[in-house]
Order: sequence, then C-alpha cells, then structure tokens
Amino acid sequence: MTTELIFVGTELLLGDIVNTNGAYLAKKCAALGLSLYYQSVVGDNEERLGEMIKTAAKRSDIVILCGGLGPTEDDLTKETAAKVMGKELVENKHSRKRISAYLENYVKGHADRKITENNWKQAMIPEGAIVIDNDNGTAPGVIMEEDSSTLILLPGPPNELIPMFEDKIFPYLRGRLPEIICSEVIKICGIGESQAEDQIRDLIQAQSNPTIATYAKTGEVHIRVTAKASSEKEARKLMRPLVRELKVRFGASIYTTDEEKTLETAVVELLHNQNLTLTTVESCTGGALSARIINVPGASEVLKQGFVTYSNRAKKKYIMVKKSTLKEHGAVSEKCAKEMAKGGCFITNSDAALSVTGLAGPDGGTEATPVGTVFIGCCLKGKTTVKEFHFNGSRNKVRDQAVTYALILLRECILENYENR
Amino acid sequence: MTTELIFVGTELLLGDIVNTNGAYLAKKCAALGLSLYYQSVVGDNEERLGEMIKTAAKRSDIVILCGGLGPTEDDLTKETAAKVMGKELVENKHSRKRISAYLENYVKGHADRKITENNWKQAMIPEGAIVIDNDNGTAPGVIMEEDSSTLILLPGPPNELIPMFEDKIFPYLRGRLPEIICSEVIKICGIGESQAEDQIRDLIQAQSNPTIATYAKTGEVHIRVTAKASSEKEARKLMRPLVRELKVRFGASIYTTDEEKTLETAVVELLHNQNLTLTTVESCTGGALSARIINVPGASEVLKQGFVTYSNRAKKKYIMVKKSTLKEHGAVSEKCAKEMAKGGCFITNSDAALSVTGLAGPDGGTEATPVGTVFIGCCLKGKTTVKEFHFNGSRNKVRDQAVTYALILLRECILENYENR
Repeated sequence: MTTELIFVGTELLLGDIVNTNGAYLAKKCAALGLSLYYQSVVGDNEERLGEMIKTAAKRSDIVILCGGLGPTEDDLTKETAAKVMGKELVENKHSRKRISAYLENYVKGHADRKITENNWKQAMIPEGAIVIDNDNGTAPGVIMEEDSSTLILLPGPPNELIPMFEDKIFPYLRGRLPEIICSEVIKICGIGESQAEDQIRDLIQAQSNPTIATYAKTGEVHIRVTAKASSEKEARKLMRPLVRELKVRFGASIYTTDEEKTLETAVVELLHNQNLTLTTVESCTGGALSARIINVPGASEVLKQGFVTYSNRAKKKYIMVKKSTLKEHGAVSEKCAKEMAKGGCFITNSDAALSVTGLAGPDGGTEATPVGTVFIGCCLKGKTTVKEFHFNGSRNKVRDQAVTYALILLRECILENYENR
Repeated sequence: MTTELIFVGTELLLGDIVNTNGAYLAKKCAALGLSLYYQSVVGDNEERLGEMIKTAAKRSDIVILCGGLGPTEDDLTKETAAKVMGKELVENKHSRKRISAYLENYVKGHADRKITENNWKQAMIPEGAIVIDNDNGTAPGVIMEEDSSTLILLPGPPNELIPMFEDKIFPYLRGRLPEIICSEVIKICGIGESQAEDQIRDLIQAQSNPTIATYAKTGEVHIRVTAKASSEKEARKLMRPLVRELKVRFGASIYTTDEEKTLETAVVELLHNQNLTLTTVESCTGGALSARIINVPGASEVLKQGFVTYSNRAKKKYIMVKKSTLKEHGAVSEKCAKEMAKGGCFITNSDAALSVTGLAGPDGGTEATPVGTVFIGCCLKGKTTVKEFHFNGSRNKVRDQAVTYALILLRECILENYENR
C-alpha cells in the first residue's frame, strides 16, 4: 500500500525543532512493508494544508498526519481533514470524559494552571471516524477510512505519538496488510561505499525481492537486505542466499549483523571476549576516542586509562615519547605514534594501546605534513602497528575519521593476532 | 520570495537517518526572510522526484534540493532536475579537476582504495548552471537559474552541506533579496530557557521590528535579534537599543555576542587571556570534555594534559584520589570530584583543573545516587569548587550536559577570581 506522511506545524517548517517523528514513522512504515513515497512538512495554514491533504489522498492509500491536534486556534489538522473529506465534526462523549479526567489530574499537580474552554475542542471528532485514545496527553488520534484513502491523524509530541503508534496504529495497519516485510543489515568497516558497491554491483543490478541497498557512514558501510513475503519465515528464506553471499564477499570486514550494534560496541565486545585491556593515548583527537569507547555501557571493564597528551611535554612526561623522536621526526610522525602506543601499554600495563597523533587543522600544515595527516598506532601484546592516513574535511571531520579508523585498526590487529594463534 | 525545500534520499524517506538538514536550512531561510511554505522528502525515484520538482518550481521562487548528488546509480537529483528543466548534462572541467585532486589525496591515505569510474559522474553539470565548489567532499553544488524558479542543488551530508550553504549559498541568496535582514545573537550560559524567557517576556511581547527569539541548547540559550531594513546600517540602528537592553539584563551570563564563537572557544580565550593552563580529569565523560576543548584551534596552548580515569584504580594511581575517599564516599561523590580536581592541578602543575565524575547510566543507579548524578569540580589557583548536578536523559545526553556545565563552572570560577583581584 502506498503511504505518505504529512507533518503539520510552523515550528517544524521553520526549523525550530528537528522532525524526529519523520525518521521514527518512516522506519515503522518500512518495517510494515508500506511503500512510503513522500514525506512533507507544512505550516499551520488551512489553505496549504488542505491542498496537501487533497493531493495526498489522491495518490496514496494511507496518509498519516502528525501534529496540529492541540487545543489552540493554530491547531487545525482535524478541522482541515474533515473539511476536505466533507465531514462534520461532532463531540465524542468518550473523548470528552478522558480529556476531563486527564486535565483534572494535571491541574492537581500544577496549582497555577486551570482548565480552559479551548481544551474541549480536542473532543470534536469527524463523523464516522475511529477514535484512538491518547494515554499520554489530551489529543486523541483519529482514523478516517474514506473511499479514496485512509487518513490517520496523530498528535505531534513524540512522547504521545510513539506510544500511540506502537500500541494502536501499528497493529491496525498490520491488520490491513496482505504481506510481511523483513530486513537484515550487514555492517562493514574499512571499505568505502563506492568500493563496496563495486564488489556487489552484480547483486545490486539483479535485485528484485529481496532488495539490497548500501548506506555510508564515516569509515563504515551498512548493507540492508529486505524481503517481502506472506510470512516472516518465507521472507527470511528469501533473504538467506543473498545474505550468505554478502558474508562470503565481505568476510572479516563485517563487524556485525546486529541492527543495534555500533562499531565501538563491537570493538569493546571483542576486547572483552579476548580478555584484553586497553589504554588510549590521544593527541589530535583530544579524548574523542576514549569518549567514543566509553559510549558503550560496561566499557570500564576494558578501558584501563585514557591519556590526552596534546602537548609535546605531556607526550614525554606521561607516555615516554623520546625527546629525540619529537625533535627529529616531530609529533605527527610514525615514530611518535609508535612510541605513544608502546608507552601507553607499558605505563598502564595494558594488553593493548591505541595512539592517535595528527594534524586536524585548520592551520599548521606543511608540504611534508599537510592538514589531515594522521598516524594511528596500535600496540597489542608487544607488537606495534602504525598506519598513516590523509583525511579530508574540517577539523572535526578529520578527528571523527581518526577516531573511527583507530577503532578499525584495533579491530584488525586483534583479529590478526587471534587468527595467528 | 517563496521557498521550498526538497530532501532526496531513500535513507531519509525510510527513516534510516534523521533529517537534521531540514531544521538547519529552515532556520537559515527564516534568517534571510524567505517565506518557507513546504518541506518534502522523496526517495531516489526519478518519476516521483521529477513530479515534485515540477510542482515546486511552479509554486515557489526558490527550490532547494538536498542529497542525491553522490557517485552511485541511486543518485539522480542532478539528472532529474536537468531533465525537468530541459537541460543537457555536460562535463565541467573545473569540477573534474577538483574531484580528481580530492580523490587522489584520499587514495594516498588509504592504500587499499582506488578511484572508480562512477566518481566522474559528479563532474557532470546541467548546461548553463552555476557550479559551487565543495570543500569537504566530491559532489559540487549547482544553481540553476531558470525562468520559472531557481533550483539550488546541494550535497546531502551535513558536513558538506552546511559549509557550502554558509560560505556560498547564503551570500548568493542575500544578494537576490530586496530587503536586507540583519541579526545579532547574544549567547548566555548557565540559565535555562524558560527562566531567560521570563526575564524578557515584556520584550518578546512588544517585538515587531526588530524581532527577538530564543533558542535553547544544552546549558545555553541563544537570543537572536533580527531587523529588516533597506540597508545594513539602518537595520543595525534598529537593533541597537534592544541589544543594549539584553546586555544589561543578562550581564555576566553572556559569554559572547559573536555568531561563530562557541562556549568552548570563549572558555579557551578566557584561559588564554588570563594566562592560565588547564588539566582535565574525567570519569563519566570519558574524554568528551577534553575533546570539546580541543575543538578549539590553538587549545594546545592552554590544555596541559587530559586524564581519563574511568576506573577507581586509575583515579588512585594517576591523580591521587585517596583510597579512603573511594571507600567511604564512592567515586560519584563531592569528595572524589574535589580530589580529582586538586590532584589534576598538582600532578601537572596547572593553574586550573576541571574534574567530572558521575553516573551516566543506563544502569548502576541507587536511591542515594540516581542515574544522572554528576559532580563537577574546578580547582583554580588552590581553591576548589564542586557542584552537584542531576541531569535527565540518556547516557549520551547526561554526558553532554556534564561537559557543558563543566565549561560553565570553569568560566564562573575564572570570572569570580578575576573580579576579586
């Protein structure tokens, strides 16, 4: 079924708030196998909103409208939808009762507030529509099953919209669908998007059901395989050969097939499983590497210590970089990265240490060491590997890439060490 | 001028990424005084994208399209826009040269990568269009000044789109507007948004030209004053009395009136001006505080050293937290924060040290120390101040707030010390 989303509200249109409902609902529609072709944002303007509803109802089977169900004069989604569909608004006794109960409870907790007349506007429902109770606010949801299309009206605040969608709208929509959709993701690191696509161009070109799509992140590519079938079992069966083929082609570059798992989580788990402790020694990333590792709950068990040795003095004093190294090779050098990693391991008695030293810019670049040059070192059980990178982009982008490639290098070193044993 | 935004990409449409460009561009359009009536999201589908461009070009003077300028077969914004407007795509020598330079640099840093043929597609430009160089990626931007409407095509990744918009598109659009819009920002820290609004409710209610608006950020509020006039001089004159009044009302809470200056930059400058060196000692923020300070180019002159002492052992070993403190009060305590800050100063012989210890969650909370409890310590010239905070939200949000309030505490301590001298 073709579906579209319309987000109503001048605060969204003008960018005062980020439309997080957009990503949420889109994911849910994808999970249901609805064909989502359009998302739109429109202000609280009756004419433009009315035109948009008309267009949407003509081209889509399901139209989900979010926002504009509040008690103020600005809020006119329900009024406009009813008008476009030629329906009267009538007071719904059940909704009025619920709104009344909700408000009385609220007023009790906020002595300075009182119930105002405009709240009752929220109990007005287009005739013949299905009312969806709101457990987290006063605005009920509405489903209007019209001949041309079904309109679903939801409250805008995410803490009202999400539970209402999960509990009531999702099951309603699933009940109307003939097919089920399933997808799997394969997350790879250390390979660029165009190179990854090159490796599977034949698969992309041959896709029908299941489909295959790639998404690029810094240092990572996520490949999503999606199948439609009459049951989940059938869909999984359709995906199996393609997923297997992808696993063969990308091998050890795949760090997870778990939807929720991040690269840093995979690396922390790897350390944990191999019983390895880690120390970070950072210069240009300034703590961003340790901060990303500590993103992972439970990282304290593997991260022994983090050093941010931004100055040459700190590099000498805390992690034993030699004066002669700094003098002859400079802080942004393979030798310095090596000594930082070795020093980090030695000082803290960790199994592994990751070091990052580079030039994030915007100033300080030379011909020999341009901005974006980063050396990443990994010392693991006495063996130290250093890689040289030349990253593009702003100071932040360089540091972001450095952090990701440091995690990737650590992962590679552990896997290599593990294989060789 | 009426304006609309079209975001292209199946990953947006399907909710794999949140559309942060939407809020960013909407704000910029508002700052320019453009009338933004529609925002839409459409997938990488030639037919539907083409229809949308046609509709938009008919009803809006300026149509900004984001995304779909990449090298893969999915990316077809430029191709579709050219087709709808009846233009051929021709290779742009200048763009090809830039892409080649960018890629060669990239490949140099990644020995395992190679330049693939599909990258050259990005140098194809609709005939007669203006090419906008991309300093952070390979896809150039495009401006197509057609009779009906002007189409502006921008790359989708925010780290490419934002600098391109700031440096090139914003001035271009301003040049086309009959009235000038000027704005000034007053950035305050340590005061919540509703409190700030309370302090200026009379000014907000009386606004016409200039207008006044508040934007909340973690630990900060930005107040924007905007005036419309026939010249910049006239606009600045209109704003002056209001800006002066705001400065009186918020006093030392204002950390800057510079559009580009961040809180961390203001703090680094303050350290620099007072000739102070700093050491950070972080537990729950895991390096995010030092990373934020090192965001500021030149921070190496003031940041002596950063310690990430996530474990109790590291707290004892590297920054002299007493065993008895950890045993009797725990790591998340006022006493521990105090000793971390003092230890940081002592060990590194810095003028100031900032310490953060807290419980970012999601697990580990107790009734006495619930998740979100954070102690921030600041030792400045021998005097240590510790503040207790209770933050709401996810692990990341708690850490984010902790970092910001650490910077705010350091700023307060320096200002106080400075005043008392």
